[in-house]
Amino acid sequence: MVPLLGMVDTIKRIDQNKFVVRTEDRNFLGRVQTPQGFSLSTLRAAHARECSVEATDDSMMVEEMGRPVLTVLGHDLSRKITTSADLEWAEALLARRAP
Amino acid sequence: MVPLLGMVDTIKRIDQNKFVVRTEDRNFLGRVQTPQGFSLSTLRAAHARECSVEATDDSMMVEEMGRPVLTVLGHDLSRKITTSADLEWAEALLARRAP
Repeated sequence: MVPLLGMVDTIKRIDQNKFVVRTEDRNFLGRVQTPQGFSLSTLRAAHARECSVEATDDSMMVEEMGRPVLTVLGHDLSRKITTSADLEWAEALLARRAP
Repeated sequence: MVPLLGMVDTIKRIDQNKFVVRTEDRNFLGRVQTPQGFSLSTLRAAHARECSVEATDDSMMVEEMGRPVLTVLGHDLSRKITTSADLEWAEALLARRAP
């Protein structure tokens, strides 16, 4: 199970020469968020396996195994804190919400 | 010619039942920006034509004609002002940059 947000922008598929191949249907694309939820046995099996591609998230490893991965509606405020700018954003948000 | 920004998030393709079909290769997807540039004759021909799909931008109409559409590197700060929040963002940015 992975949380997914819809696409805000118009998305183009491009080729290696940077020409537009087509405009993608946004209804079938989404931005994945964390945390991602899997049963422990599925997750262990996914991590134990040789992956044919460079996996950028747990979901991708489970997809590679051919297991179904359901998506649920994500949330704009569920943002991963990676950079100091992310932390600043989170602190500003919390400060605004304080009573 | 359309300005394009890279994808920041991991992008999943989903089916109608909201299950993940696959993780997309971000190198071949991009978020399109405005303004989009075409020669006047191309743009006129694109608008004069019956379009088989609901076109969400000029580029899509030119793509439908089978004309090549080149992408160029977009810019994060080249943001379309649509909502009052967009305007607030632009004003805050300009205020910070003022001498």
